[in-house]
Amino acid sequence: MEQVFSYQHLYEFSRNIFLAMGSSETNAQTAAKVLLSADMRGVDSHGIARLSGYIRLWETGRINANPNIRVGHETPSTAVIDGDKGLGLVVAPAAMQIAISKAKNVGTGWVSVKNSNHFGIAGYHSMMALQHDMIGIAMTNASALVAPTYSAERLLGTNPISVSIPAGEEQPFVSDFATTTAANGKLEILQRKNMEAPTGWVQTKEGEASTNANEVKNGGALLPLGGDKEHGSHKGFMLGSIVDIFSAVLSGANYGPWVPPFPAYVPMPENQPGEGIGHFLGAMRIDAFRTAEDFKLHMDKWIRRFRSAKPVKTEARVVIPGEPEREMEMERMEKGIPLLTAVVNDLQELSKKFKIDL
Amino acid sequence: MEQVFSYQHLYEFSRNIFLAMGSSETNAQTAAKVLLSADMRGVDSHGIARLSGYIRLWETGRINANPNIRVGHETPSTAVIDGDKGLGLVVAPAAMQIAISKAKNVGTGWVSVKNSNHFGIAGYHSMMALQHDMIGIAMTNASALVAPTYSAERLLGTNPISVSIPAGEEQPFVSDFATTTAANGKLEILQRKNMEAPTGWVQTKEGEASTNANEVKNGGALLPLGGDKEHGSHKGFMLGSIVDIFSAVLSGANYGPWVPPFPAYVPMPENQPGEGIGHFLGAMRIDAFRTAEDFKLHMDKWIRRFRSAKPVKTEARVVIPGEPEREMEMERMEKGIPLLTAVVNDLQELSKKFKIDL
Repeated sequence: MEQVFSYQHLYEFSRNIFLAMGSSETNAQTAAKVLLSADMRGVDSHGIARLSGYIRLWETGRINANPNIRVGHETPSTAVIDGDKGLGLVVAPAAMQIAISKAKNVGTGWVSVKNSNHFGIAGYHSMMALQHDMIGIAMTNASALVAPTYSAERLLGTNPISVSIPAGEEQPFVSDFATTTAANGKLEILQRKNMEAPTGWVQTKEGEASTNANEVKNGGALLPLGGDKEHGSHKGFMLGSIVDIFSAVLSGANYGPWVPPFPAYVPMPENQPGEGIGHFLGAMRIDAFRTAEDFKLHMDKWIRRFRSAKPVKTEARVVIPGEPEREMEMERMEKGIPLLTAVVNDLQELSKKFKIDL
Repeated sequence: MEQVFSYQHLYEFSRNIFLAMGSSETNAQTAAKVLLSADMRGVDSHGIARLSGYIRLWETGRINANPNIRVGHETPSTAVIDGDKGLGLVVAPAAMQIAISKAKNVGTGWVSVKNSNHFGIAGYHSMMALQHDMIGIAMTNASALVAPTYSAERLLGTNPISVSIPAGEEQPFVSDFATTTAANGKLEILQRKNMEAPTGWVQTKEGEASTNANEVKNGGALLPLGGDKEHGSHKGFMLGSIVDIFSAVLSGANYGPWVPPFPAYVPMPENQPGEGIGHFLGAMRIDAFRTAEDFKLHMDKWIRRFRSAKPVKTEARVVIPGEPEREMEMERMEKGIPLLTAVVNDLQELSKKFKIDL
């Protein structure tokens, strides 16, 4: 069962909830905008469905509604940011803004963030660079659900990477993907439908191959992109590791199995080596390499050549990264955002608790 | 059949061949060192087996033995380099050196390269950063052998990514991987053994799934990491695309299906939009983020935690990226480098042609 809400309606509700939590007006607006961008782009697992989760983290003291987000060490092209336990939805855009400023000054900017929380979809942050004619890069670590190649233990998060690249007449190239074969949200869809998972998505808690969509709940693990060694899972493991190291070992956040879990009821890992979760954000000015005009001309040519490739028989055409999400965004702006009943019930609880109309 | 040669022997032979080609002493040394680093690390497909291929490119005028490698546009943290048709084995280290210098000055350095040729293994270049307590990044595009998700056409190269990260007491983290399920070299091994390829490695020229290890020779394609959509091949496609765009659309090199092929007998693609092949190199100073001492302490902890993970039943332990190549290097330094008879015959041809003893 689904119920449909307009973007504006859910945006106002989320903003009001963040205000009730104690966020400043500016931060509440940013947080609501980042959160809703996930729903609009069809990444339902990272959108308003998580609002009550953020609130529970605030209630247990793991989220600070009024963070003093500050720059630690920095150079002309780099900085470490302390998120002061703020919402990642607010900390990451602030960090990306610093990366963009540095890129304006010296060509590129790179910011590693500690002491933050879940930052929504990586794509929102990387896309911030586009309006400045910059390439944007965003990644984050997350709590351990993924087993490295040959490991029975879960040691990495789904650790997504997003890279956004401006084009000219064409729409920008926007990639945003978990470094696993499939994101956890895809497994949850199969669980609801009582379906099996494809091979290479999950393993049992002993590290054996499985197609049980409930395996992760049973102590099993998601698998790195590739699935198994024969299909290149060591490459997915390397990608997830790079995200973990750039986001957390560079900044002083927690890494590997020590990354704080999103659900507030899951206990924090013991003997944590850092603070909060970590992100890594980058911005590269196009005209630090060649004129934006030339670049965009060739980017358009690149996109058109790939889009016009001869497709395999079962498909209409090659999909350029970012196209499906952009189509979804247009559709949902027009027709609204459908929410599952469980999510609506969750929001109604929040509505009652904070006396804010849904 | 194999014949074993010492590192020093093959190094001298390669250096002399590059000298005979007209390279300067410095460039010949660099080229030989980069080339042999592949054999030493067990990436036999990218080592001395390609020496005659480089020579043929020089004979057809596609490689310039005495390139004037020059910086085009630059900012404090970026540069575009024109490789002047030089050996990628020489151009890429020069570009990486510039990235490292920029990182010394402003924290990070990023160099996009055009008008170059095959640069050997990406890992050599990214590892150059390690001795400076920097993270090194290297990628390159290559001629089109890979079909994007849903494409029957080959539009991308195997486009590898390498990231090297310093550690303290532990050896550095060194990742270097093609953005395909399997590299072409692995297919060639199966071809020689007359074996089938696993699922998800290749498709037919019509874009149908296949396990024929000879498919690429028949006009088929390698597949992006993931293999098919259900197993995340769109993520491998995005990675390969990012490498292509950073290496070539940023620099002005050829991209997509227009990248020059390595074999000199394969005609150049028509209507090329750029110059030569492209690379992208980056260096980030660790202490542009936190002290190198703190970082290395945590990097050691990261490596030890992952290495000590409970393994799956069939394997002894989790492999840290870079370990197998380092072990191979030690073994081959001691016992020598085994070369297939076909490779030795090839080198003997070069030996005769240039009157240089093998």
